[in-house]
Amino acid sequence: MSNLLAQRLTAQLNTIPLIDPHSHINPHRAASTTLADLLGYHYYTELAHSAGLPRERIEEPGITPKEKVARLVPQLATIANTVQHDWLIEICREFFDFDADALTAANWEPLYDRALDRMSQSDWEQQVLRKSQLEGVFLTNDFDDPLTGFDTGFYIPCLRTDELVFHLGKSEVRQRLAAATGHEPGTPAALRTALGALFAHFVNRGARACAISLPPDFEPAAIAQSAVEPILKAVVAGISLSPDESRTLSRFVFWTLAEFCSEHHLPFDLMIGVNRRVYEAGVSQGQDLFDGRCSLIQYRALLNAFPQVVFPISVLSHGMNQELVSYSWIFPNVVTNGHWWYSNIPAYIDLDCRSRLQAVPQTKQIGYYSDMYKLEFALPKFNMYRRVLGRALADDFVIGRGWSENRAVDLGRRVLRGNIERVFGGERAV
Amino acid sequence: MSNLLAQRLTAQLNTIPLIDPHSHINPHRAASTTLADLLGYHYYTELAHSAGLPRERIEEPGITPKEKVARLVPQLATIANTVQHDWLIEICREFFDFDADALTAANWEPLYDRALDRMSQSDWEQQVLRKSQLEGVFLTNDFDDPLTGFDTGFYIPCLRTDELVFHLGKSEVRQRLAAATGHEPGTPAALRTALGALFAHFVNRGARACAISLPPDFEPAAIAQSAVEPILKAVVAGISLSPDESRTLSRFVFWTLAEFCSEHHLPFDLMIGVNRRVYEAGVSQGQDLFDGRCSLIQYRALLNAFPQVVFPISVLSHGMNQELVSYSWIFPNVVTNGHWWYSNIPAYIDLDCRSRLQAVPQTKQIGYYSDMYKLEFALPKFNMYRRVLGRALADDFVIGRGWSENRAVDLGRRVLRGNIERVFGGERAV
Amino acid sequence: MSNLLAQRLTAQLNTIPLIDPHSHINPHRAASTTLADLLGYHYYTELAHSAGLPRERIEEPGITPKEKVARLVPQLATIANTVQHDWLIEICREFFDFDADALTAANWEPLYDRALDRMSQSDWEQQVLRKSQLEGVFLTNDFDDPLTGFDTGFYIPCLRTDELVFHLGKSEVRQRLAAATGHEPGTPAALRTALGALFAHFVNRGARACAISLPPDFEPAAIAQSAVEPILKAVVAGISLSPDESRTLSRFVFWTLAEFCSEHHLPFDLMIGVNRRVYEAGVSQGQDLFDGRCSLIQYRALLNAFPQVVFPISVLSHGMNQELVSYSWIFPNVVTNGHWWYSNIPAYIDLDCRSRLQAVPQTKQIGYYSDMYKLEFALPKFNMYRRVLGRALADDFVIGRGWSENRAVDLGRRVLRGNIERVFGGERAV
Repeated sequence: MSNLLAQRLTAQLNTIPLIDPHSHINPHRAASTTLADLLGYHYYTELAHSAGLPRERIEEPGITPKEKVARLVPQLATIANTVQHDWLIEICREFFDFDADALTAANWEPLYDRALDRMSQSDWEQQVLRKSQLEGVFLTNDFDDPLTGFDTGFYIPCLRTDELVFHLGKSEVRQRLAAATGHEPGTPAALRTALGALFAHFVNRGARACAISLPPDFEPAAIAQSAVEPILKAVVAGISLSPDESRTLSRFVFWTLAEFCSEHHLPFDLMIGVNRRVYEAGVSQGQDLFDGRCSLIQYRALLNAFPQVVFPISVLSHGMNQELVSYSWIFPNVVTNGHWWYSNIPAYIDLDCRSRLQAVPQTKQIGYYSDMYKLEFALPKFNMYRRVLGRALADDFVIGRGWSENRAVDLGRRVLRGNIERVFGGERAV
Repeated sequence: MSNLLAQRLTAQLNTIPLIDPHSHINPHRAASTTLADLLGYHYYTELAHSAGLPRERIEEPGITPKEKVARLVPQLATIANTVQHDWLIEICREFFDFDADALTAANWEPLYDRALDRMSQSDWEQQVLRKSQLEGVFLTNDFDDPLTGFDTGFYIPCLRTDELVFHLGKSEVRQRLAAATGHEPGTPAALRTALGALFAHFVNRGARACAISLPPDFEPAAIAQSAVEPILKAVVAGISLSPDESRTLSRFVFWTLAEFCSEHHLPFDLMIGVNRRVYEAGVSQGQDLFDGRCSLIQYRALLNAFPQVVFPISVLSHGMNQELVSYSWIFPNVVTNGHWWYSNIPAYIDLDCRSRLQAVPQTKQIGYYSDMYKLEFALPKFNMYRRVLGRALADDFVIGRGWSENRAVDLGRRVLRGNIERVFGGERAV
Repeated sequence: MSNLLAQRLTAQLNTIPLIDPHSHINPHRAASTTLADLLGYHYYTELAHSAGLPRERIEEPGITPKEKVARLVPQLATIANTVQHDWLIEICREFFDFDADALTAANWEPLYDRALDRMSQSDWEQQVLRKSQLEGVFLTNDFDDPLTGFDTGFYIPCLRTDELVFHLGKSEVRQRLAAATGHEPGTPAALRTALGALFAHFVNRGARACAISLPPDFEPAAIAQSAVEPILKAVVAGISLSPDESRTLSRFVFWTLAEFCSEHHLPFDLMIGVNRRVYEAGVSQGQDLFDGRCSLIQYRALLNAFPQVVFPISVLSHGMNQELVSYSWIFPNVVTNGHWWYSNIPAYIDLDCRSRLQAVPQTKQIGYYSDMYKLEFALPKFNMYRRVLGRALADDFVIGRGWSENRAVDLGRRVLRGNIERVFGGERAV
């Protein structure tokens, strides 16, 4: 009975058109062109590699898409239990009339060809969007992206700032910044001017968010211009920085970004807790991990200093979700944001979703984002989330609290869609 | 079937008269006098503020109780999903014949008036106690509380010691201590004498526990009197302390309290893990948060040094519950105590409750306390807990292990009521 | 319906013959000889002690097995809620036709006598193995174990190395190492030779794994021989080491063990996170606890340096399970291994098991080990795990994903049995 109820609620949630508030879609090539675009998603390459497929086989330069798929398919049996494998099968079924449980040596080639056929249709991208009920997709744009040649009303720009905060010591990054803005970031003032120019450009082109991923040991702090001046001089002179100097520079840039978010009424997405390149022999994008010893207390100064900036926060560690719930419950400018990466599996979404629904104001929860690189993944990923959400609404609200099904679905609609419009619609936190 | 079973067990648990082992009740004004006493509970003011209501609107000096409610009611829609909102609605239904799902502009005034009417009845406090089946309520008393003018057999004194441990550097605290005990705490010996006088007073007035809340980085240690002597001198001379000196003084006072707990056979409630004033612009009592990076290993020296003192321990972070389970399973003097504050929502209680029932001796678990400021909250808070407990007993014991329903309810009775009498009844740990 | 399905799957899992990949069985006395061997398991003595039974009563020298049982039985009522108590009752029912819920003053003596009778039968060990469907049991052997006098094809040797890594400063350990190998570990080279001799001996005698338990603050690192040379000299000279020197020595030995694991294609079981002797007044083996603040990031250098060594990893803290899932999903040489000690209760196994099944390649999960000291415990411990596994397969795979029951049981078979053969069968990680 509880299963049927959860299915009914999920079916209702499935009818709600979506805006995806975080993705890595390339708006110039949003949909896949071959099955290799799907199987090349880092989840499959890294899991296949983890299960024994050498990186060199997967990433050999010059292999055709078909060859890549041919190499990955035999390894899929080892990861058929994973929920990521489910996404793949669901895509194949929903989009390519696949009717088996798994891709095998015997069945993958016809599938490859059929997919190629469909993906070659001129309106494939629109077919995917329609079937997925997507009405908007947030991007992750390099800071020097010209943001031209696509509909920024649908593919919504988002200023991604990891490189600015953590790699300004690299001359290539500074050159790109100078090229994009006309300002050499050689002094704190010039750096600020350059960053301001980025914000102006992005906001002019319809950006709705600034975003960054952060390592577990990062702790934002206000830094005086005078403290960062000699560091920038050293950078320009090609002198390598001490860890302390690097941290000071990162903090200065980060804090300046928050100031511009305030000025431009732009939410600042914080994705907290990733250690980069932990497994350096891994496949592309399959090298990062995390250290659970991280706390939102590290963001205390930031959250207090910028009451007018909305911070949609994602945490990589499931263990930090309770802090996220509690900080969102107390700080007006903290919003819970999706289920990120290693936390994006039903076992963890379940508890994280339930705790948020029970203790965070319903207006401050962004239920889910796809994080996808290719459009086809929105459907199975949001479906996964909607099943968990439907179950939570069934058990905790309809059964547990006696809510009507309509009321429960309304709550679901809000976290799934409504809050995205509210939070990224340009309102200030206070 | 499992739902019906859980409901049956919960119904049984609901008949058990309660002793509430931790509250913030003021025994001179235990029940509410207007709806503002309910809506003024920090859960509602902080959630409403988090959802957008300015602190200044909520805490404007001089507004009437009715005006306060009028300002909060429109904001309640944003937090109607929270379990705290459920408490409020349940109170309104159970005590004031309210029959709607939410307080709205249209329905709150009649409710306000009806509640005022009921609360004005001379036996309102007794009505609440009776309906809530409360047979005793532990208090949280300032160290200089005279403990007079109320029935200490029902409203049981508890010596709260945060100010002594963490704010003895404030002259106002020292003056209150001197006034209460006749001893100026200018030397370690005098401080010890003063603390001893507090214990004597509290125990004479029927106190059953000493209690304190502790920040995540606190680590108790024995401190020599000689080490604390110059620090106390500096304090008296009005010299401000270094962080190291402050910590030494805190440790000295804390350890001395444990010694007096031992001497007086008083359990020492430790509430571990709160960072105070993290969000300083927040509403009253809505400013504190936590850092999940905390471990009970910090209490190793204490737990070994005082085998004869019972330590009922609460942890603020859900992530620390497994440590609490494990330390209670190993240390005879550690008892699990309730579900505190940010962990006091069904999603977290569920797992915390189940793990304790599965691995901690049944005699060493205090299931729940209300933490309430006004008597009306015992009913919905204990009901929330009893539903979770009933479900755990149904799934893990009756279905999972084949226990009879009676046996399961007996286990529930023990953690809900029996252990409170046992632990706070004056027995020693060993 | 979901309950019946879970029961059906569990029943299927129950028919799968087992290899237990980690135990503390003494192959010369594998089965129990009296009920005191069962009640003497540290779970019962430590829980009984935690619930109030003095250590001196439990561990009084010279008491008979029957007297020991007589002293423990009255205390069992206080821990009858624990899942560990369930193991005991299940053993008594399955092996000794016991039909009560609890051992009491009234019923224990006949049980004791009946058990003694059964255990005295010459084929008792074989009876237990048969009923438990055990086809192999991994041991935990002291490094100087001669490994003779038992069937190493059934009782599979495993080189346990805690003493070598953490206690080489003790002359008794060095003497045992010298006696076992003929090499005094007075220089790095000699120490390496001695360790190599241990590996040769163990591998010759059929060892399938090297194993160690590690404290939460341990962080492996490669150490130059030149750095460890003066430390070994000091050790030999009887000079006590500084904490830094001890850590360097531990790291050197540990890294050398990993090198030999690589050379011998031996998996290296890491059991991460235990603090020893936290409660020194506790009963034997009931003194250890943990600090949840530990991360697999501490093993970054090790995991990258030894891609060819398989590391089956157990974590003591439930909070680290997500890291374990994520590191296993990324690193080819990390395998999830069982549910260890304080995490070995259904409430934690449930979430840990589900998250692993959802995100770790199915070939890289070792579902469970018994950790037992006496053979009788395999049955109830594996049963506990199989119930959780059956439930997870039912809910997440058959109901949640539409898998057939057979397919779900196949996944269960793999984590319960198949992967043990694969991982410990001598294959290399890459």
